[in-house]
Amino acid sequence: MTRTIISSATKTIAIGFDEPFCVIGERINPTGRKKLAAELEAGDFTTVEKDALEQVACGAMVLDINSGAVFTNKMAEDPRYADNNFVEPPLMRELITRVQALVDVPLCIDSSVPGALQAGLEATTGRPLLNSVTGEEERLEVVLPLVKKYDVPVVAISNDDTGISEDPDVRFAVAKKIVERAADFGIPPHDIVVDPLVMPIGAMATAGKQVFALVRRLREELGVNTTCGASNISFGLPQRHGINAAFLPMAMTAGMTSAIMNPVRSVEMEAINAANMLLDHDPNGSRWIAFSRILDQVQTGANFAEASMAAKATASTGRRRGGRRSVA
Amino acid sequence: MTRTIISSATKTIAIGFDEPFCVIGERINPTGRKKLAAELEAGDFTTVEKDALEQVACGAMVLDINSGAVFTNKMAEDPRYADNNFVEPPLMRELITRVQALVDVPLCIDSSVPGALQAGLEATTGRPLLNSVTGEEERLEVVLPLVKKYDVPVVAISNDDTGISEDPDVRFAVAKKIVERAADFGIPPHDIVVDPLVMPIGAMATAGKQVFALVRRLREELGVNTTCGASNISFGLPQRHGINAAFLPMAMTAGMTSAIMNPVRSVEMEAINAANMLLDHDPNGSRWIAFSRILDQVQTGANFAEASMAAKATASTGRRRGGRRSVA
Repeated sequence: MTRTIISSATKTIAIGFDEPFCVIGERINPTGRKKLAAELEAGDFTTVEKDALEQVACGAMVLDINSGAVFTNKMAEDPRYADNNFVEPPLMRELITRVQALVDVPLCIDSSVPGALQAGLEATTGRPLLNSVTGEEERLEVVLPLVKKYDVPVVAISNDDTGISEDPDVRFAVAKKIVERAADFGIPPHDIVVDPLVMPIGAMATAGKQVFALVRRLREELGVNTTCGASNISFGLPQRHGINAAFLPMAMTAGMTSAIMNPVRSVEMEAINAANMLLDHDPNGSRWIAFSRILDQVQTGANFAEASMAAKATASTGRRRGGRRSVA
Repeated sequence: MTRTIISSATKTIAIGFDEPFCVIGERINPTGRKKLAAELEAGDFTTVEKDALEQVACGAMVLDINSGAVFTNKMAEDPRYADNNFVEPPLMRELITRVQALVDVPLCIDSSVPGALQAGLEATTGRPLLNSVTGEEERLEVVLPLVKKYDVPVVAISNDDTGISEDPDVRFAVAKKIVERAADFGIPPHDIVVDPLVMPIGAMATAGKQVFALVRRLREELGVNTTCGASNISFGLPQRHGINAAFLPMAMTAGMTSAIMNPVRSVEMEAINAANMLLDHDPNGSRWIAFSRILDQVQTGANFAEASMAAKATASTGRRRGGRRSVA
């Protein structure tokens, strides 16, 4: 049975076919978040720390840490800041140090810059997930040695030097190539988490069916866990949360075992919590019942993140009173 | 390719693997609705007519008509009313006549009383769905001849004289027996819509996985369409709509092609509309986009049924202006 093991200082998570769906929180990512990038440039980690706490309270089991910031002001003063190889490694180190000090969940080190991946691997306690390798030759040659050296699992995105294929058979072949190349390095399939690439359904009507079929094939033929950027599916369409909230349980039914997504959204987290129960990954429905109390509050106007933080604080106090160790 | 064809006076619906999910509206059912039963006893069809219009506006493609009323007052005056064989046939006829006069969608004739099924078949224009036969010997012997005589499709519920088995293999075997017995009557598999029976997830943690596996098997091995009483899955648990709204897209991914459900619930209908698009049953997402406008209104406080009725009225006027025939 395929199990991808990741860990923080004291917590171990298994991504697997018989495990609850692994929610990887995507919020700590300055790419496309100008305000966050500006804060980081000013050395302000307030939003990062808030995002870390909120995501974990809302149900993220892993936090993605992306260091892809563009420091516009510094760039104007010092041309070295135009180079992400210069900007990202120290930023990644700082982000990880801050987040690890605050929450005890495994991390997902996310960068297109090899130096930032390396810096992240050095800074992380436990066994993080590395994000990502692709089928591009240069990327394979740089990232797989890091995966081997640090003995960590890696997200494998199924595009290669020819780009992203619209043909799911080609995307499967790229994934297979990555798994085979990893094997050459002695990296087992259970340490590869394939992202089959989710196309927007608004641009390609078969995008959903493609992913469901691909996930099933990746699981049955390659024995790998899978992930995706879940919100891509609804790009460009109205009422995106409703589309995401149907997509996630469908992908889970097809066998998808994790997603990189925004957990601070009650609609999507409701869908995942329900689907976990429906796939028999929530014994006695106790997680659903706890989650339903937060939904009760959201439906009467409470903010989902605040209600989740409050519920977590209460649960944690309860645990301490009971003499058990508090969680994250 | 399995297609179950049903029709009303002018409208034909195909239930099938490559068709949008068939929503069968369950509201017109006095069983467990005391107020409705009392109205029917008084000859008042106001609620029935409102339910017919609302369900169709909200997206029901078929309306279930259940005549299982208990007429308490009449029973006190006349002992014949204690017998559903006496009460249901004329009531079924009346319900169908009223509903057919109001909406142009195929009907699903639903009764445990053979005389009511027969009365319904006589009263219905088009090709209705008959609900239901089971694996019980007596029921098979009474219902299958009606199915054959009137050349209609039938819902086959997978329980038999031994009751409802918790073992999915037994439920599959019962479905198979019904399909074989139907074949003896010359009734083809595409005219059998199997209800594999959905257990409450709160009582049986494997209920979801069971149904998904059963639906896939029924489709692959028997080539039949499937249906279920969708809300059973969430019985006894809090925040039922969230469970139902995850269950339906998951069942659709496994291959379920219809459900008997309450369509006057935006959360469940949102899930179905999104899942239809994700399974490529909504070309260009045009149905999703139209539905998203109703969701916009619901999110700002509108009643789902009212917003759906208004949208339908507008669309219908628009169509007439465009010279095309109005729908339902």
